[in-house]
Amino acid sequence: MRWLTPDEQHAWRSFVRLQERLGGRLSRLLQTESGLSAADFAVLVNLTDVPEGRQRYQDLARALEWEKSRMSHHIARMAGRGLVVRQECPEDGRGAFVVITEAGRTAIKAAAPLHVEAVRELFLDHVTPAELRVLGDVSERVVNKLDEDAS
Amino acid sequence: MRWLTPDEQHAWRSFVRLQERLGGRLSRLLQTESGLSAADFAVLVNLTDVPEGRQRYQDLARALEWEKSRMSHHIARMAGRGLVVRQECPEDGRGAFVVITEAGRTAIKAAAPLHVEAVRELFLDHVTPAELRVLGDVSERVVNKLDEDAS
Repeated sequence: MRWLTPDEQHAWRSFVRLQERLGGRLSRLLQTESGLSAADFAVLVNLTDVPEGRQRYQDLARALEWEKSRMSHHIARMAGRGLVVRQECPEDGRGAFVVITEAGRTAIKAAAPLHVEAVRELFLDHVTPAELRVLGDVSERVVNKLDEDAS
Repeated sequence: MRWLTPDEQHAWRSFVRLQERLGGRLSRLLQTESGLSAADFAVLVNLTDVPEGRQRYQDLARALEWEKSRMSHHIARMAGRGLVVRQECPEDGRGAFVVITEAGRTAIKAAAPLHVEAVRELFLDHVTPAELRVLGDVSERVVNKLDEDAS
């Protein structure tokens, strides 16, 4: 058992606390100002990044690290609100697509500037460019490692 | 509107992706190996850090940035599993306490080493000490700022 050193423990717990606190604050602002939850926002951001705004359930689930059942339930609720539609894909066996709707694009377009402003005020304004570079590098490296492990 | 620069955008999105991916992976491992959700774990970690393992609902909610209703529901479910108890506090008007039980302490004690091992393998092993220091500093600074804003 490789326990954490005091420095590691301190840094890791601060980092976890940052995620809880910043994530919680941003979610609440997003919900209040745009009616989207953090989960809605994450789904819509993912879909605006892919061609034609459509992605297979399984790829979206993998991108968000969500369980299949959470994904199905959440997408069903978002579909009920008209933000996405489910598109069956009978010609192959690799499962259905989730597709962003015009209403979904409108919702994310309205939410994005408020969200960016909050990200700046709550986070970026308190981080130097050099620190931000470290954060970006570390994030990319760790995510790539997680991707490798999963494949 | 102060939009994000490409560097800021890139770093922020990598950071968000890290939180989704690493958080998701750690939660699933925790759930599989110890039967605790990430939310259970966060509550229990908070309660082991305070005197007598008890904290007021409102302070716990603030520490986790949870809405009151989410807190009530989650604590009720954890109480149903014997991990915490609710303790009324009739002598003052500042509300009830959440108290960790022996079963709660046993559960977190069993989960902690598995969790630490996963944190090391998935995250710390890929970060240099200097990077970790930057990450810890940034996290503390931003959390302190969020605390100031909230008070």
